[in-house]
Amino acid sequence: MVRVGIMGASGYAGGELLRLLIKHGGVDLTFATSRKYAGEYVFRAHPNLRGITDLQFVPNDVSNVAGLADLVFTALPHGESLKYMPSLVSSGLKIVDLSADFRLKNADDYETWYGYKHPLPDLLEKFVYAVPELNKEDVRKANLASSPGCMAITSILAMAPLMKEWGANIDKRHVVVDAKIASSGAGGKPSIATHFSERYGVVRPYKAAGHRHTGEIEQMLSRLAGEKVTVSMSAHAINMVRGILCTCHLFYDGDIQTSDIWKMYRAVYSGQPFIRLIREKKGPFRLPDPKVVIGSNYCDVGFELDTHGRRIVALGAIDNLLKGASGNALQTMNLMLGMDEKRGLEDAPLHPV
Amino acid sequence: MVRVGIMGASGYAGGELLRLLIKHGGVDLTFATSRKYAGEYVFRAHPNLRGITDLQFVPNDVSNVAGLADLVFTALPHGESLKYMPSLVSSGLKIVDLSADFRLKNADDYETWYGYKHPLPDLLEKFVYAVPELNKEDVRKANLASSPGCMAITSILAMAPLMKEWGANIDKRHVVVDAKIASSGAGGKPSIATHFSERYGVVRPYKAAGHRHTGEIEQMLSRLAGEKVTVSMSAHAINMVRGILCTCHLFYDGDIQTSDIWKMYRAVYSGQPFIRLIREKKGPFRLPDPKVVIGSNYCDVGFELDTHGRRIVALGAIDNLLKGASGNALQTMNLMLGMDEKRGLEDAPLHPV
Amino acid sequence: MVRVGIMGASGYAGGELLRLLIKHGGVDLTFATSRKYAGEYVFRAHPNLRGITDLQFVPNDVSNVAGLADLVFTALPHGESLKYMPSLVSSGLKIVDLSADFRLKNADDYETWYGYKHPLPDLLEKFVYAVPELNKEDVRKANLASSPGCMAITSILAMAPLMKEWGANIDKRHVVVDAKIASSGAGGKPSIATHFSERYGVVRPYKAAGHRHTGEIEQMLSRLAGEKVTVSMSAHAINMVRGILCTCHLFYDGDIQTSDIWKMYRAVYSGQPFIRLIREKKGPFRLPDPKVVIGSNYCDVGFELDTHGRRIVALGAIDNLLKGASGNALQTMNLMLGMDEKRGLEDAPLHPV
Amino acid sequence: MVRVGIMGASGYAGGELLRLLIKHGGVDLTFATSRKYAGEYVFRAHPNLRGITDLQFVPNDVSNVAGLADLVFTALPHGESLKYMPSLVSSGLKIVDLSADFRLKNADDYETWYGYKHPLPDLLEKFVYAVPELNKEDVRKANLASSPGCMAITSILAMAPLMKEWGANIDKRHVVVDAKIASSGAGGKPSIATHFSERYGVVRPYKAAGHRHTGEIEQMLSRLAGEKVTVSMSAHAINMVRGILCTCHLFYDGDIQTSDIWKMYRAVYSGQPFIRLIREKKGPFRLPDPKVVIGSNYCDVGFELDTHGRRIVALGAIDNLLKGASGNALQTMNLMLGMDEKRGLEDAPLHPV
Repeated sequence: MVRVGIMGASGYAGGELLRLLIKHGGVDLTFATSRKYAGEYVFRAHPNLRGITDLQFVPNDVSNVAGLADLVFTALPHGESLKYMPSLVSSGLKIVDLSADFRLKNADDYETWYGYKHPLPDLLEKFVYAVPELNKEDVRKANLASSPGCMAITSILAMAPLMKEWGANIDKRHVVVDAKIASSGAGGKPSIATHFSERYGVVRPYKAAGHRHTGEIEQMLSRLAGEKVTVSMSAHAINMVRGILCTCHLFYDGDIQTSDIWKMYRAVYSGQPFIRLIREKKGPFRLPDPKVVIGSNYCDVGFELDTHGRRIVALGAIDNLLKGASGNALQTMNLMLGMDEKRGLEDAPLHPV
Repeated sequence: MVRVGIMGASGYAGGELLRLLIKHGGVDLTFATSRKYAGEYVFRAHPNLRGITDLQFVPNDVSNVAGLADLVFTALPHGESLKYMPSLVSSGLKIVDLSADFRLKNADDYETWYGYKHPLPDLLEKFVYAVPELNKEDVRKANLASSPGCMAITSILAMAPLMKEWGANIDKRHVVVDAKIASSGAGGKPSIATHFSERYGVVRPYKAAGHRHTGEIEQMLSRLAGEKVTVSMSAHAINMVRGILCTCHLFYDGDIQTSDIWKMYRAVYSGQPFIRLIREKKGPFRLPDPKVVIGSNYCDVGFELDTHGRRIVALGAIDNLLKGASGNALQTMNLMLGMDEKRGLEDAPLHPV
Repeated sequence: MVRVGIMGASGYAGGELLRLLIKHGGVDLTFATSRKYAGEYVFRAHPNLRGITDLQFVPNDVSNVAGLADLVFTALPHGESLKYMPSLVSSGLKIVDLSADFRLKNADDYETWYGYKHPLPDLLEKFVYAVPELNKEDVRKANLASSPGCMAITSILAMAPLMKEWGANIDKRHVVVDAKIASSGAGGKPSIATHFSERYGVVRPYKAAGHRHTGEIEQMLSRLAGEKVTVSMSAHAINMVRGILCTCHLFYDGDIQTSDIWKMYRAVYSGQPFIRLIREKKGPFRLPDPKVVIGSNYCDVGFELDTHGRRIVALGAIDNLLKGASGNALQTMNLMLGMDEKRGLEDAPLHPV
Repeated sequence: MVRVGIMGASGYAGGELLRLLIKHGGVDLTFATSRKYAGEYVFRAHPNLRGITDLQFVPNDVSNVAGLADLVFTALPHGESLKYMPSLVSSGLKIVDLSADFRLKNADDYETWYGYKHPLPDLLEKFVYAVPELNKEDVRKANLASSPGCMAITSILAMAPLMKEWGANIDKRHVVVDAKIASSGAGGKPSIATHFSERYGVVRPYKAAGHRHTGEIEQMLSRLAGEKVTVSMSAHAINMVRGILCTCHLFYDGDIQTSDIWKMYRAVYSGQPFIRLIREKKGPFRLPDPKVVIGSNYCDVGFELDTHGRRIVALGAIDNLLKGASGNALQTMNLMLGMDEKRGLEDAPLHPV
């Protein structure tokens, strides 16, 4: 059986990877590293996993772990993957990186969005930016993959059909992404901003402009549209622990009807197991809402045509720790290993929760 | 002492009006009507007011109440104010209407946004659309006032300085209002969509396009900019009971710096007691967030300049039941009666809550 | 393959049964009934199941469904199971009833706790009250099983070791059960009490005395202790959608130490796959908390010895829709069908959520 | 005008004292100290107070502040009041202490409940433990007052009538206090236990036994009953920012009816402006619930008679930062200064919130 390991398994994405890999059945989880929890049971960091596994964390030491796996997930903090990657890559492992360190293909974009000069520009092109719904064959062939940012993948999947099928008619200079995100996206480290009494009930525009996922979204949408797309993104922290909704406002020229847009979404997403197209005429859940994807790898996608402002509202909803992180990473692994991409990811969402 | 009454006092806006008027001190609250609760103590509908007042609801009968007050608040459901208004107006009362029935000045706009032909077009122009921060003198002189919709006033206050001071440079065809609103804005009537288990934890794009407040916003912004403004609005229900954040995305031409925008906001809002300009460099509350206005009549306003997309993000945060309804209505009453506009509205927000 | 069906599948417990049975693998789900949704896809009632199943609800007609299954779950409203049961039982089906209609063995107890005379007293003894951790062999042999109330099973599992192993020393007249329960336990029907704006943020003692689960708890604890136990229960609705914590306060005579109590819990629960004993010295989750069981069939159990008041605080935490309803019912089915009791129930809880 | 100051004004209780004193009108707020925020505007710590006051924090230096006030509130962390108190007391100031340092009258009780030897035992008796509803005359005459713990005052007010009027029939060895408390009671300091993702949605029995407020409750109830009362308390953190519900389970001998208990509560609380007795037959709020006291100084009190277990369930609900801290402290100040006890405390609760 293929052996897999996780570097950086004590964070929230690492915890979800552990949960998913333990029940996957097709791979052998051989190690999970953590600087902070080395030597402790994984349930110290992830209390839900008590009784599920006896695994203990080991230190973040590449020399010790490289021989223990055929594929490694790196779920380290941004900037940390960079340090371990040359050694990991040279050991010939397959790698799925969950950090931002290898998402952008143009090294200059790291200066724009992250404020630093990327130290390993040559490695960037070797990583496939994995959105399996859009580049499945590339992912299948990849040895090195980079899983997108949580708000990036949501926005990309919400808008991809429009950009791909009708990009010439979309106003590519005025694309607004208004993102609403739960607390777990900010990780597990306490601060005054994440202190319950201060964080509860907020609608906090914590990054009204300049969010780093903007670069990823532009990179992918530009590729799909065949032309430069400028994204104007604002990110808001809201009162929940899991989930993202991205509301993408696009302006168009020309004439279009709802049924035409439907066709574009169907054309692009037909057969994709983790995309659900949502447009209902009754009930409380008529358009995508993260409430009904929690616990699953779904990205619910929908849209509304607004002829008044010549606007299309494209919506995407995910569980940020699954399709926005560990779920997409596992789907990527499945494809890289030649397995069914759904394996280990077939759980229905929980409802109500 | 001036006598005031409330028609439609059993809803959430009515309850807040009761709470505010009871402690106002400068007016005499003479009646509160309710069809459903007529004959019952007000604390049956508003459990918070138990021990605060012995007032009982009376029926919605204009002939009985008209002589009991000098000024009447109509906090009836949309469409209901219309029925009572001719009789109320002819009795010579001052009126502050909290419904949507007299907000739009052009009768055709009711067909566009509300889907019906307004039966009293001549009355529309007699109502002042009351945003005291923008038209205080008009409000002072008014006998009939219409208090704006909750998302409308938030968006208008967020964007007014840009439209008024720099409207020529704003792209008036691509104005996006992305609104996040608490549950109390939807009123007190149970349904499957408001059932706790179904409503908790949602980010529900319940009106991705076509929200009726769009018409009010366009009306006021167009007036300020001196030119037609088209607004593209999407409204989302989120996981809280009170509060609104409106994130307004505006595109611009020309060059501008943060300090220039600051000056516009200061120019328009200097001396306005219920506007706080929020732009902090540290702490969790750097931009407007409804969490820190709850219980007050404040509208917190702020902005972010995004040169990447040539965008200004204008933000407004309010307590939807106060500045978004009863607080603004009381401020309007104060002005119409020649009182200090702050009277009865000086409560600080609660924090944390 | 064994065929199973669900009568009453549009409620929250029914929805969870559907979710669990769809992925169970060892049984064939042949029908799901609903009066309200007959003829519609199950995802109309359970939006999480969209894309997971194409099943449609059929009407609640026993004559049509009896031949379609070997085992039927009845997840009908309390009082409704009674109507269908004679016919279902006479058809020779195995039955797992999730309602309260067959939980009490003494018909008189229905008058005490439910206020009606039980119409089918002879049938009561034929149903096994299924708490597999305490009467697994009985469950294995059962054709008819009744799954406990959500607060009942939590309290019973929290206190069983003390009653069974040390019942003589427990003050059986002064047993307090203070229950905290999420909204989904109250079902999916809207009302003013479940209206989001009125339900959010409550700590509502909705049944301070006289809760109907009291009878079940007394029945089981008395059996375990070999002597009449009187339970004083208070139930509180709190601000969440899933989960129960029962805090059980027991007074004792004699001397005892924490390690002695540990041994009792271990003696009773050793080898039980769905019980986790929780007593930690560090971290935020030192005693049972429903937050870390959500999505799983676990009942987390723990205790605290309070020598000051000669009290033992016994705690149980569950996901009310799983171990408190559908999870326990499926575990019961597995046992009745001779399968591994864990089958289809091995999901780890989600964290954080 | 009387001058008052606050030592330790950057915590949540300090913030609420600031908010209340600013609008009190009858006293002159002369200083507010904070070690951490000295030199900064109070709105840095309390973002709600932006625009309300220009006050800046000064350091915690007794020598500087003693001459600036006639009455001082000490809202310092537990253990800190002790350090400053000798100097403050000797300066002849009136003092209202919000910490636990002077609540217990018997120095030995500090060893029992706090684990340290009280260094100033002679000072303990000089402080009046201020529950104005129960010892108003003592509070009026006091120069030194200690305001109770938040869960203590809730429990005491819930049970006082029974202990005072019918104590002989109450089983004083088996008094259970099951407390549910919001996050703000734990203060403003971040930790993993208060990290939003870990704290949201919990029902955390963080102090199942041995809670330090137990000592205060026993002290006051024993005084009222004229006999030693043993309290068995368990404290639970739940999913909200403000509010406490204490469910007190008391067993009784003899016969009693609901109307008899009513009379006891009326006898003790008649005329008390901050007590509301809650027992409704309809609506969602039939017994005390913190949801409908938020923002006010009310303690809602109610009870349920459970003849099955010979139990009375006594319930108290407060806003923990008001009646549980700063509101009660201000009420105490009003009495000590000969003012109307309601002054500055007449705000109705907010609803819905």
